[in-house]
Order: sequence, then structure tokens, then C-alpha cells
Amino acid sequence: MNSENPFVHFLHNLHLHRNQLHGRHASIEEHDHHGAYEIFQVSTVNALIEGLYDGEIRYGELRKHGDFGIGTFNALDGEMIAFDGKFFQIKGDGQVYSVEERQKTPFAVVQFFNPTLSLEINENRTLDELTQECDTLLSGKNCFYTIRVDGFFSYMKTRSVHRQHHPYKPLNEITRTQTEFEFTDIEGTIAGFCFPDFTRGLNVPGYHLHVLSNDRKSGGHIIDCQLSRGRLLIDHTSSFHMELPRKKEFLDADLAKDTRKAIEEAEN
Amino acid sequence: MNSENPFVHFLHNLHLHRNQLHGRHASIEEHDHHGAYEIFQVSTVNALIEGLYDGEIRYGELRKHGDFGIGTFNALDGEMIAFDGKFFQIKGDGQVYSVEERQKTPFAVVQFFNPTLSLEINENRTLDELTQECDTLLSGKNCFYTIRVDGFFSYMKTRSVHRQHHPYKPLNEITRTQTEFEFTDIEGTIAGFCFPDFTRGLNVPGYHLHVLSNDRKSGGHIIDCQLSRGRLLIDHTSSFHMELPRKKEFLDADLAKDTRKAIEEAEN
Repeated sequence: MNSENPFVHFLHNLHLHRNQLHGRHASIEEHDHHGAYEIFQVSTVNALIEGLYDGEIRYGELRKHGDFGIGTFNALDGEMIAFDGKFFQIKGDGQVYSVEERQKTPFAVVQFFNPTLSLEINENRTLDELTQECDTLLSGKNCFYTIRVDGFFSYMKTRSVHRQHHPYKPLNEITRTQTEFEFTDIEGTIAGFCFPDFTRGLNVPGYHLHVLSNDRKSGGHIIDCQLSRGRLLIDHTSSFHMELPRKKEFLDADLAKDTRKAIEEAEN
Repeated sequence: MNSENPFVHFLHNLHLHRNQLHGRHASIEEHDHHGAYEIFQVSTVNALIEGLYDGEIRYGELRKHGDFGIGTFNALDGEMIAFDGKFFQIKGDGQVYSVEERQKTPFAVVQFFNPTLSLEINENRTLDELTQECDTLLSGKNCFYTIRVDGFFSYMKTRSVHRQHHPYKPLNEITRTQTEFEFTDIEGTIAGFCFPDFTRGLNVPGYHLHVLSNDRKSGGHIIDCQLSRGRLLIDHTSSFHMELPRKKEFLDADLAKDTRKAIEEAEN
């Protein structure tokens, strides 16, 4: 616990180094070589961009590799968010369902969430301000951060995607006509990741966040939000595991394109 | 075993699909979901390009993750090749040493080698012809291939690098003045990998091969060769694990540059 800033609590008492946080001192624990759980990623975001929406890994298998994360479903049937070991599906019409073990994913990222930093936020934060606040707390840009926010949001704008049918269109064609949802004054949980820039080609560099309301009735991929108050939790790891699909469609796909623009279109 | 081509032997009898191989039929087993060992990578090639030559992982730890692979040493003290569980260091002066457990690496890739395909080669092959031959045998470009060749080489050209001192220069400045070695009529073992293009930023896309002579007196990073006869072994996996350094120097480094040109300069 940092006596200079009562809002910053350290959940593990390891070596600390200090960063400046809005004029106050904040701290984040130094990297402990074997402490953190690995990030477990299924397939690559480039494969999703290319329209490869049918994966081989079931959620029953995925949950063995993490209790927290984000992703999607076969046929691109909505957005996935997981926390506290519970997995949810937010379909294209905005309805929320519990994920069943037999459902499959073409792309997902999970981790066993074991946060090393906690920050109480009692001022309004736009999505940009929230990620900037995270930036000041991160101990460097070249590791994997797992982000959770439990809070009250005066505004939340999300999107989800509709189940696709063969032949699949590329992701950014679909997200151009995505369903967007706006909510005011909702309580909910954000889950997501901040990936290093050099993982471009494998995943979305920077922040990628999903949300679910406390009443389990709304959520999706976050486009914008206004946080009124909440608690930010951050975990970090330098261990990354990626499990690629083994089907011919993936093995032969052109996944080496520069998808920077396509990812921006698809994710924002 | 493929009756149409007595030179192609399958080491595991799984489902097969067929590729054309120089007018003959060759086969490679289909991807088995949980069969293969993961690729274990320490740090990224971009970090090496940037001159981050001091890693934290000891070879005593690395060998728990693979008995086969390539890499380098702290302070860029030569080229590493491993096969059959034995790790070797080829220093800048060309001398070969056994790697000790306490030595550290800033960049390495290893796997427990469990080849699924074996091909006897009884005709001359340049390096390009050898990798083209591999290409025809691979079951798709989007997985990780581990390559071993035991053979007789009428010609072999390698390089190694000299131990560096602080402040470290970037890799392509060093390899511009690398020591190159030429050998004729040597028997030896090639070890290396073929990585998918979308791993650019993490590793060298395509083939990256090191070699060691049977008399354990010469070797290095392969620049060119002429194989007279030998046996090609290929393993493949869709599982990739990367362990990033946790030191501040790495966490803060600019690793998102397009290093395509620098990698080509450094590796060829």
C-alpha cells in the first residue's frame, strides 16, 4: 500500500518502482520472473480479419487456460467477455447468454487474472482518459497487461456482431454494419487487454476492452464510455502462449498482410 | 511409409494428405490437435536487432523447454545450436564449446524435436534448393516447422559473431563486420526453424538455420551451403510460447519498428 496515494493499493508486496500518476505517486510491482500466469491466445486477429470465423477450440477447453478474457464465437456469433470464471456471449441483437462448454471460438484471449495493482477512481473518465490512466500505471510497453474495471458508467457505447453465414465476409466489412448500443447510468465490468505494439499481426496492439452490465443484460465490445467511479485492476505478464488453428483453411490463408488499417476499422 | 517414394518415410502413422514433390508424391501428416510440443521462444528478434544482448534465462532453464534449437548468448557471444539434447556455442573466432547450464541467452528458440517427416536426399542441393524442397513438404505456411538435416556438405559458408561490450551496437551494425567461415566436404547437422510470416516482429519469418560439423569443430549461422546427400527431418506444431524479458531495458525499448530490412541484413 502506497501511503502517498490512498487510492493505490498493491495486491502483492513485491519489489516496487515508482511512476508519476497525475502529480501523485503511484507504484506498480516489478516483474517477478515466475509469478504471473501466461496469456493464452487462440488463433490470430489477422485470421479473424480475413474472415476465418470457425475455430476448433471449445470453451470447455479454453477455460482451462484462464478465468478472464475476451473473444468471439464460431460464425462470429457475438462478443465474448469472461471474468471470475464466468463466460458470457453478447449476441448481435444485444442479448446476453451464458457460454456453454461445447461452444467453439475462432479467436479468444484469456488469462487466470491475478491483479498486481488496484486503483480507486472517483472522478469522471472518458475511455481515452481511462486508458491514459492505465498507461501511467504500466511498468513498460513491452509486456502483456490484463485490465479489469468494475464501475458505474454514466455512458457506455458498445457493439456486437451478428452470426455470419458462408461464404464469410472479412471482419471490417461486417463491422461497418455492426449493431451499436448506447446505455446511460449502468453498473458493469470491463475486461480486456493491452498488448505490445510488436504483437501486431497476432493481436490488436494497445487496448481491447469488452464490457458486461451487472444485471447481465447488456454489453459488448467497447466503442466509448464515461466512467463516473470505479476500481481499476491490472495484471501483467511476460509469458504468452498462442494456439493456432490446424485446419487447412488457416494453414493456407494469407495472414502476413499489413492489417493495421483493417484492425482499426474493425475494432473502433 | 510412402510406397510411391521410397525416400519419404513417415515417422508417425496418422492421417495423411498428399503434396506434389518434384513430380513424385510426398506426404506429410495432418495436424494433430494435441500431439506436438510447443515452440519455446526467449525474447524477440526485434529486441536483438535493437542491441538488447543481455537476457535473464539460463541454458539450464532453457533446456527444460526443448532439446533442439538455435539462439545466441549474453553479450552476443556467438551462435547457439542444439540437437539431441546437446547445446553448443560457436564463438566469433569459430571455436566450438559445450554450453554450460549457468550461461544466459538474450534470444533463443527451442523445441522437443519429434519429427513427423523424413526425406532422404541423394542429389546436390544448394541452400535455396533445400529450403524449396522443404517448402514442397510443408502442409501450409501458417504453422511452426522445425528442421533438421544430417548430411554431407561439399560446401558450407557460415558466420558467427564476436562477444560485444557496452554500449552495445544494433545487430545489423555488428553483422556487417561478422566473421564468415567457409568449409568444403564436411559432415554435419543443420538445426533451425521456419516461422510464419505473421510472426514478423517476434522472430525471423521463413527459414533460420544453424549448423555444426560432426567433429564439433566448426559451424555457425548458415549463409550458404551445398548439400551432397543427407536426411531431412521436419517437425511441426501450432503451439507457440514466448517468454519476454522482464527488465526495464526491454520493457521500455522501441520494438515496434518495421525491422524487415534490418533482419534481412542481420540474417543473410
